[in-house]
Amino acid sequence: MTIGHLPDIPAIGDGSGLEADPRLHPEELQLAFRNKALPLEGLRYDLTPTGLHYTLIHYDIPWVDARAWRLKVGGLVRRPRSFSLEELMRRPQRTLPVTLECAGDGRALLSPRPLSQPWLTGAVGTAEWTGTPLRALLEEVGLAEGVQEVVFTGLDHGVEGGVEQDYQRSLPLAEALHADALLAWAMNGRPLEPQHGFPLRLIVPGWYGMAHVKWLRAIDAIAGTFTGYQQAVAYRYSQRRDEPGEPVTLMRVRALMVPPGFPDFATRLRLVPRGPVELEGRAWSGRARVTGVAVSVDGGQTWAPAELGEPVGPYAWQPWRFRWEALPGTYELCCRATDSAGNVQPLVQHWTARGMGNNAVQRVRVVVRDR
Amino acid sequence: MTIGHLPDIPAIGDGSGLEADPRLHPEELQLAFRNKALPLEGLRYDLTPTGLHYTLIHYDIPWVDARAWRLKVGGLVRRPRSFSLEELMRRPQRTLPVTLECAGDGRALLSPRPLSQPWLTGAVGTAEWTGTPLRALLEEVGLAEGVQEVVFTGLDHGVEGGVEQDYQRSLPLAEALHADALLAWAMNGRPLEPQHGFPLRLIVPGWYGMAHVKWLRAIDAIAGTFTGYQQAVAYRYSQRRDEPGEPVTLMRVRALMVPPGFPDFATRLRLVPRGPVELEGRAWSGRARVTGVAVSVDGGQTWAPAELGEPVGPYAWQPWRFRWEALPGTYELCCRATDSAGNVQPLVQHWTARGMGNNAVQRVRVVVRDR
Repeated sequence: MTIGHLPDIPAIGDGSGLEADPRLHPEELQLAFRNKALPLEGLRYDLTPTGLHYTLIHYDIPWVDARAWRLKVGGLVRRPRSFSLEELMRRPQRTLPVTLECAGDGRALLSPRPLSQPWLTGAVGTAEWTGTPLRALLEEVGLAEGVQEVVFTGLDHGVEGGVEQDYQRSLPLAEALHADALLAWAMNGRPLEPQHGFPLRLIVPGWYGMAHVKWLRAIDAIAGTFTGYQQAVAYRYSQRRDEPGEPVTLMRVRALMVPPGFPDFATRLRLVPRGPVELEGRAWSGRARVTGVAVSVDGGQTWAPAELGEPVGPYAWQPWRFRWEALPGTYELCCRATDSAGNVQPLVQHWTARGMGNNAVQRVRVVVRDR
Repeated sequence: MTIGHLPDIPAIGDGSGLEADPRLHPEELQLAFRNKALPLEGLRYDLTPTGLHYTLIHYDIPWVDARAWRLKVGGLVRRPRSFSLEELMRRPQRTLPVTLECAGDGRALLSPRPLSQPWLTGAVGTAEWTGTPLRALLEEVGLAEGVQEVVFTGLDHGVEGGVEQDYQRSLPLAEALHADALLAWAMNGRPLEPQHGFPLRLIVPGWYGMAHVKWLRAIDAIAGTFTGYQQAVAYRYSQRRDEPGEPVTLMRVRALMVPPGFPDFATRLRLVPRGPVELEGRAWSGRARVTGVAVSVDGGQTWAPAELGEPVGPYAWQPWRFRWEALPGTYELCCRATDSAGNVQPLVQHWTARGMGNNAVQRVRVVVRDR
């Protein structure tokens, strides 16, 4: 049901969906408070503590009674049925550490700024997810001939871009049958917290966060291509809002660092005493392997390689370290990852009309002092 | 060590500490992303799930090795000593549900806006805290004659208002000896998550959040009055930044509601189908009891009483409910609590130069539609 263009839903800014002024609209602050980035010192943990993991919640967090909840599996399947949470938890289970990042991470650093959740950096986290393989469940209900996509529907309901909807996303059939796609009921060894999709969410390793549908209530196999708002409109790479562009899928290669030293509260400027500083961070890339991280202490003019560590699993971010001999002065620290598919982070913004996939290198301003 | 007025720490805005423009500075967005409000649908839980509880972190979350960590107890005491976490956990323990709210909650709704963490509403949460009574520990080390305050020092380090500091706050002696002040190592039955003060924090039921010092490393009994930045400068009620004003202490009376219906993603405008709507929320007040909550559906022109429920403990928020027969139209919903000390929430902003204790009534814009 489309309810856009009604006078009682106001627009942010001039209605163009873009903002050239670096100051933020109050509506953007509302979004920033509902959603949450990983404070970058949280990059120190191999597995992000649950309450530090990033969250993006389009509408409201649904209130769910787990005893009454059921997952309906239907559409083009031979034996449609529904499952209780207990029934799902009796199925074969696996635990996988998986890095998730929001496709809009970096949006508020763009100029002009696409108006949506105004992420800076850090809409990322890594958790251990426990659930049952989606593939075995789809095999059990029996996909019919002609299935091309599988649609996942959440319990969260709202309006976006003038379209009233339950949050829905689809996967191409091959991705839905990927051996490591899970229907997950636990995160870091405990039942999902409400904001992470209790009682059940999808985990599709390597994909940006929008694919990992939370608060699942239905899975439907379909012929053809799903054209819901989150698939055909919202999560697209394009230069204009009225172009279809390309779908957002796997996470692009990216590295982030733990800002060194200590912060000024208000500006977050970093202060570092002179001497040796161990810079550290994490790097990840969809389904590719990170092959290198380079560090610059002069705003990207010169680069030196960091030391790469081992990830805790094939879909988890990799740690990196770099030793910096800090002398008094002002610095802009940068880090830049490269992956096994030959991708490298851009130095300038990756601008799209909806602010997707901006993996431009992080820049951290630091003042080093004699003390 | 004061390092203010140095040219390399920039100011936000024009340096006055106030902003009349409703648009936010990029530095305020950085703060909004590090800190986190309770999404208001989270008011439905008696005890806030850990990852939904609000957090305000002045500097960085410290990285702590619990085996090496010790709590030093000293100053004007007869038997100064230090405790390992294990030693503290072998002491008598208590579990208390306690509501915490940030003293700056509501700051970004003020006009002009004091520049600091730009809270709207929802910098609040209720958790079950487990720890050992502070009083027994102070008795064990033996307070000397002349002690007037007890100072708590955290491991978090940074610059604020030009002052380099470890985060520190004091309590008057009578509050430090309050029977329900705890040194807490668990939240909702699990070890503290890093952002909530791992491995140990102070809990002082009834006080605004700034008193509940996280990442504790030292407790010191002192004669006289503690004059550190967070005590003498930051958390004060005053009309100008250069006035000392009054200290911020107990939480002021306040009610918040779960916004009804469902939201528009970008603007958070609420859409509600016509018919009966059960409005619900929570109310709390420092050490007083909430005696009533009133609800208005016409922006505060007329009020009707809500039904008050029982809290889960003497320091926990109280639930309230109100049945509203929603007819098509546009509404501004408000809720307003009164406490046993005779305090009532103001209808207009409580402006102070640092944006403290603004408990003005919440206003939720709702469109009711025929469907």
